[in-house]
Amino acid sequence: MTPIRSARARSRKLLVLDRPAGPSQAGVVWLVGAGPGDPDLLTLKAARIISAAQVVVHDGLVSDEILAMAPASARLINVAKRKSRHTLPQDEINRLLVGLALQGLTVVRLKGGDPFMFGRGGEEMSACRAAGVECQVVPGVTAALAASALAGAPLTHRSLAQSVTFVTGHAAHGEPDLDWPALARGNQTVVIYMGLSTAGLIAGRLLAAGRDAATPALVVINASRDNEQRLTTTLGELGQSVQSLSAPALLMIGEAMALARIEGETAQFEGEASRISARVSA
Amino acid sequence: MTPIRSARARSRKLLVLDRPAGPSQAGVVWLVGAGPGDPDLLTLKAARIISAAQVVVHDGLVSDEILAMAPASARLINVAKRKSRHTLPQDEINRLLVGLALQGLTVVRLKGGDPFMFGRGGEEMSACRAAGVECQVVPGVTAALAASALAGAPLTHRSLAQSVTFVTGHAAHGEPDLDWPALARGNQTVVIYMGLSTAGLIAGRLLAAGRDAATPALVVINASRDNEQRLTTTLGELGQSVQSLSAPALLMIGEAMALARIEGETAQFEGEASRISARVSA
Repeated sequence: MTPIRSARARSRKLLVLDRPAGPSQAGVVWLVGAGPGDPDLLTLKAARIISAAQVVVHDGLVSDEILAMAPASARLINVAKRKSRHTLPQDEINRLLVGLALQGLTVVRLKGGDPFMFGRGGEEMSACRAAGVECQVVPGVTAALAASALAGAPLTHRSLAQSVTFVTGHAAHGEPDLDWPALARGNQTVVIYMGLSTAGLIAGRLLAAGRDAATPALVVINASRDNEQRLTTTLGELGQSVQSLSAPALLMIGEAMALARIEGETAQFEGEASRISARVSA
Repeated sequence: MTPIRSARARSRKLLVLDRPAGPSQAGVVWLVGAGPGDPDLLTLKAARIISAAQVVVHDGLVSDEILAMAPASARLINVAKRKSRHTLPQDEINRLLVGLALQGLTVVRLKGGDPFMFGRGGEEMSACRAAGVECQVVPGVTAALAASALAGAPLTHRSLAQSVTFVTGHAAHGEPDLDWPALARGNQTVVIYMGLSTAGLIAGRLLAAGRDAATPALVVINASRDNEQRLTTTLGELGQSVQSLSAPALLMIGEAMALARIEGETAQFEGEASRISARVSA
């Protein structure tokens, strides 16, 4: 029997953070999920922690509106300059976080979505642990949850999707190493992060493994942002449908995606008789 | 080419909601994710919508602190009275939501976690659509994201978990209908919602399908709440480990669960040399 640290204890720590204070002896790294992009989809906890940051280390997926919530005095460090395609290697990011915390700073590592869903947050946490630096993790709304909610397409559904699997379409060497027969089974939702460049290949593998070509697919670009774009298609047409699109994109494949609305949640109130299958311009 | 409704358009709608107003001609149902329990893990959007509710329809998993954020004038309807084991059948909940909205009310349907992850939110949305009632969905932090963040055990990890699958352990007839060979593959995380009563059976099936008995498992009760409890075990011992526990529980199985901390995030600062495998009392 070991006493379990309660959430109450964590709250006390947070209250200490909330007090305005200069650098103390021991810094801390907060790994914070910034959610899918819409600042409104930050958690209350994330918003409060960002507003108390001394340094914010962020990647290119974090919205400017969210970065603007940091104190004016906070130092902002972008570790992924998307335009120049230059991204700090992961071990340099790890060293940066540890180094800042060892200076006694309150470091907020802001990551798009949730820190532990395809964000390499685990590696950053391990680097902190190895260096004896305190690391706190704040979960966030991962992009697929927002994309699903806003499109009205449930990730799970009693009669359409018994389970949901999240994979990455990113491949270090040509092809993602995925369990195609498992993902090809019906009655489930498969969500592919970072799958735009391998969409045709993924669709081909799923079809070869037996998934029905008519399986509905939903593609969402910039989920929850002002420039969100949605496209409905089928697994059979997925590869061709996404050719003109650019990242960040989510591919969501499964029977429940048939419920997706393209024209937004109010479509039926604007005289639309049937669901629209739209093509999105680049 | 079809114009895509932007997030900006949704924001305008929200501003209308924010204005204090009596019942209007057309009601609306907001399907809102209440997150894992800690009110701090609500999204800013969810908090604002709750504070403007005229009726809140909620289940037993929504914290009292969150219900207290509704206006004093709001009517609260609990559709899952856990103590008496009496739960409103789903079609009655659907009819209730539609009926309230047709009275012109702003109805907030508060669901634990995310509305589209094992919450039957899809059925409620479909009932609204069928009745011509506007339904808006607000995503939430699903319990597994919070459990993972607070335990420091990533759901995905570059070298330990290439994917994560969410299933329900709930079985209508004895045994959940899951793809055991797929779930038994290594290098992935399997999260089981509502799996406490079938934990032994699930572990047995995974072992029979070839998953290593030494695979780390993390069990989290009441994720993110004041009374959160965590237990680390292995797949081989999972069934026995959970015998004294009570729901709501999450079972998380996979190599990355080896990173879980039992004593909270600050364990290493309190002189603990190694990770503790704790037993939790009932």
